[in-house]
Amino acid sequence: MTSKDGFQWTPKTGLVKGVPTIGAISPKSNIKSDATIYDVIVVGAGYCGLTAAREAAIGGLQVLLVEARDRIGGRSWSSNIGGYPFEMGGTWVTWGQSHVWREISRYQMQDELEISQDYSSGAKHCCLSGLTGKKNISHDEEDALVESGLRKFVNVDGQYGRGVMPFPHSLKMNPLAAKYDSMTAADRMAQIQDSLTQDEYTALVGFILLCSGGTLDNMSFYEFLKWWALSNYSYEYAIEYLVKYKFHGGQSSFAIRFFEEALDTGNLSYVFDTPVKEIHDLGNSVKVTARNGSVFEGAQVVSAMPLNTLNDVVFSPRLSQGKKAATNMGHINQCVKVHAEVRNKDLRSWSTITYNPKDRFLYAFGDGTTPSNNTHIVAFGSQYNHLQPDDDIDVTLEAMQSLVSMDAERLVFHNWSKDEFAKGAWFFPTAGLVTKYLEDLRASEGRVHFANSDWARGWRSFIDGAIEEGTRAARTVMDLHKLQVSKKRSKM
Amino acid sequence: MTSKDGFQWTPKTGLVKGVPTIGAISPKSNIKSDATIYDVIVVGAGYCGLTAAREAAIGGLQVLLVEARDRIGGRSWSSNIGGYPFEMGGTWVTWGQSHVWREISRYQMQDELEISQDYSSGAKHCCLSGLTGKKNISHDEEDALVESGLRKFVNVDGQYGRGVMPFPHSLKMNPLAAKYDSMTAADRMAQIQDSLTQDEYTALVGFILLCSGGTLDNMSFYEFLKWWALSNYSYEYAIEYLVKYKFHGGQSSFAIRFFEEALDTGNLSYVFDTPVKEIHDLGNSVKVTARNGSVFEGAQVVSAMPLNTLNDVVFSPRLSQGKKAATNMGHINQCVKVHAEVRNKDLRSWSTITYNPKDRFLYAFGDGTTPSNNTHIVAFGSQYNHLQPDDDIDVTLEAMQSLVSMDAERLVFHNWSKDEFAKGAWFFPTAGLVTKYLEDLRASEGRVHFANSDWARGWRSFIDGAIEEGTRAARTVMDLHKLQVSKKRSKM
Repeated sequence: MTSKDGFQWTPKTGLVKGVPTIGAISPKSNIKSDATIYDVIVVGAGYCGLTAAREAAIGGLQVLLVEARDRIGGRSWSSNIGGYPFEMGGTWVTWGQSHVWREISRYQMQDELEISQDYSSGAKHCCLSGLTGKKNISHDEEDALVESGLRKFVNVDGQYGRGVMPFPHSLKMNPLAAKYDSMTAADRMAQIQDSLTQDEYTALVGFILLCSGGTLDNMSFYEFLKWWALSNYSYEYAIEYLVKYKFHGGQSSFAIRFFEEALDTGNLSYVFDTPVKEIHDLGNSVKVTARNGSVFEGAQVVSAMPLNTLNDVVFSPRLSQGKKAATNMGHINQCVKVHAEVRNKDLRSWSTITYNPKDRFLYAFGDGTTPSNNTHIVAFGSQYNHLQPDDDIDVTLEAMQSLVSMDAERLVFHNWSKDEFAKGAWFFPTAGLVTKYLEDLRASEGRVHFANSDWARGWRSFIDGAIEEGTRAARTVMDLHKLQVSKKRSKM
Repeated sequence: MTSKDGFQWTPKTGLVKGVPTIGAISPKSNIKSDATIYDVIVVGAGYCGLTAAREAAIGGLQVLLVEARDRIGGRSWSSNIGGYPFEMGGTWVTWGQSHVWREISRYQMQDELEISQDYSSGAKHCCLSGLTGKKNISHDEEDALVESGLRKFVNVDGQYGRGVMPFPHSLKMNPLAAKYDSMTAADRMAQIQDSLTQDEYTALVGFILLCSGGTLDNMSFYEFLKWWALSNYSYEYAIEYLVKYKFHGGQSSFAIRFFEEALDTGNLSYVFDTPVKEIHDLGNSVKVTARNGSVFEGAQVVSAMPLNTLNDVVFSPRLSQGKKAATNMGHINQCVKVHAEVRNKDLRSWSTITYNPKDRFLYAFGDGTTPSNNTHIVAFGSQYNHLQPDDDIDVTLEAMQSLVSMDAERLVFHNWSKDEFAKGAWFFPTAGLVTKYLEDLRASEGRVHFANSDWARGWRSFIDGAIEEGTRAARTVMDLHKLQVSKKRSKM
């Protein structure tokens, strides 16, 4: 199956929109009757929506899953090209992330992981590209450089962040950390800049912009501290948890398990290619109206859409003030992720960290070996020197070439910035958003429950956070359902 | 409610069997009809059985939970005395353990944790007690000492174990590690002994026997490597994951959530105080016979009993050869855990590591402050110099006093070695058991599915592993149930 999402370029075909994925769903709907009143309508079939739908369906509720796209997975999906998965969005997973690992374990997929990096042969170096030029350093030097930069960056307490954020999953239990949400990364850089070498500066900024997909001026320092705390307050584990272990079969081989399990219960109705226009809470039920005019009715709704798209749906009654304010702020992540399949075998062990006005990417590395025995390179950019990779493919190819000389057979990417159902990549907040509005974002409004990785407590922004939130939403929905069923019974 | 389990001693009452706990269940049964044929009978209400029962009940199956004791929690339960929980068995949890953290997050209990250690005032030292005598060292020196010993112990590959065990959750993906299962800790000690100082030796042995509850001669070196790998190949994270974060309200405040949620589905029948004598797979269903003569029938059974007790139940047909062999080997953990409530406030920041023929305990530390503003000390022993704390309370008091002078108002403990439904503490294998028999232990036999933390893939021996296994069992049962329902339908 081919999704309309994503782009592929080869010298022969040029740029083509749409790529093959096992996450594309056919037929597009299994709805039998328009008249059904569902127990719950889940809007959005990313990991959060999939989890909510699956749990509610297992729990015996009649579930309708409504998805704008032609595929599952939301911001995490893989294109399977010639048997090899290119990860279009969220990619890496680890046993250090509880919700995602619980599911990997539940599906007995523990042995289906592989390690992205392979430094066993080839270039075996990192190209550091800063304001003063390029130089190649060993991966050990790369690690030491990013680590020393990061340790200066996070060391607000003499304990590398552990003192101010001992409980990374909690807002409440880290009272000393809240004040860092009024600081941007630029504010923190200003405090430590004098202590950084030029190379540390380049490596540090490259790495933190890789995390945020934003700019130094708009990313919250608090949120970066949270990532760091979740990564065991360690650069080694930041790498371990953020960019190391991925699925042999790609993310869609994982997401499809959630969908198929939900389907197997017999309680899941679904409709794809159906963007939602309006969610109207009628008091006794909720009406969901799609752009194509379809109307669905449910006793409850789980809105599993990302923060940056909430303004595009009409909620009635209107969203709470806090939610509205957060939605108007939006999150800042405009990460650009481009895959290249290249003939250069030596690049398997190559990486680069860059921060200079010339480069459109900040971070790139050998991510795998394709079935044709080519090297798979993945490159990341942010809002800084932002690239729209589908605007002019020659500019994109040039941007890749400027990182390292490569003989590219293929490019694959998804432009998340132009994607109207995401409007950005994983959540990364501006200063102030999280400490002010997290609880507002998490709050249900009437019969509508808001669930998304964007406001998870733990690994917010990650697949793990999406599953956390989907799990929470399902419990909320099921508890309310039980209450209503028992009320009905007591009236009978 | 008071459980028959556990012991409490005070100067006034002397030794009393039975302690109060919110994990004791009353009434002892909610069964309405003897004639029910359940979709699944779960034998054992520890975290594994509770998880299996809960998941199956949510999934709409008619579940019977049969438990030998008068309480839930199995080897993890807390006695609540004067509003303060003493943890009788499994205690500590962390976001580094995926299954347990997923549940903590699911129940929104992230803010209900506290840290055992408090080094802010008082003694602030560790007493190291080895063959050459006692000495007090700072906690920093304690950490450095255990860490340097451990790093020598695990460094079989120049990478502190990461080289041979890159995927701690997998048997298959760590082929280089299997050979270490033919070694005991004593075998490994023989290889490194010359490189250890006397103090390192004491600290190292104290720590690893704390982990195994066995002796150097019978504990598997492989299994210790696995604990180490799960702990991020780091002493800091071994402490972090093994003995740091616990529930304000005690383990039973967590376990009761599973039980109550299962009960709320309306699909859970249960019976406590009902040890099982025989599990007879009739081909079309399974008959479970209790010692008291009660007979229950189910379409499937989840046996959630620990390894060391499987020989006490008659399985018919007989257990597979592999399971039988593993059961005959048994696991070695005879950990002794004794709590003392003491008037000595300075001991809040005290700890001790001991390994010498005089001490009956290996490891102890200040674990909390009670509502009476007393210090709560927890002490651990193993098979080495094994103590039966209820045999002679004066010997036990003396063993505590020999660690440090204390003014004890109360002792609380559970003797796991004499407990016929556990026959030991958390699973720790002898050399050879895991690599030979893990897959056998995990295999279903007919309609009987075997689930227990003792043979989990990940955090085997931990609450996390129990939930992992309960989750697996529930999926197996529900898949088979679905198959049978659809077969029946197709016949109609």
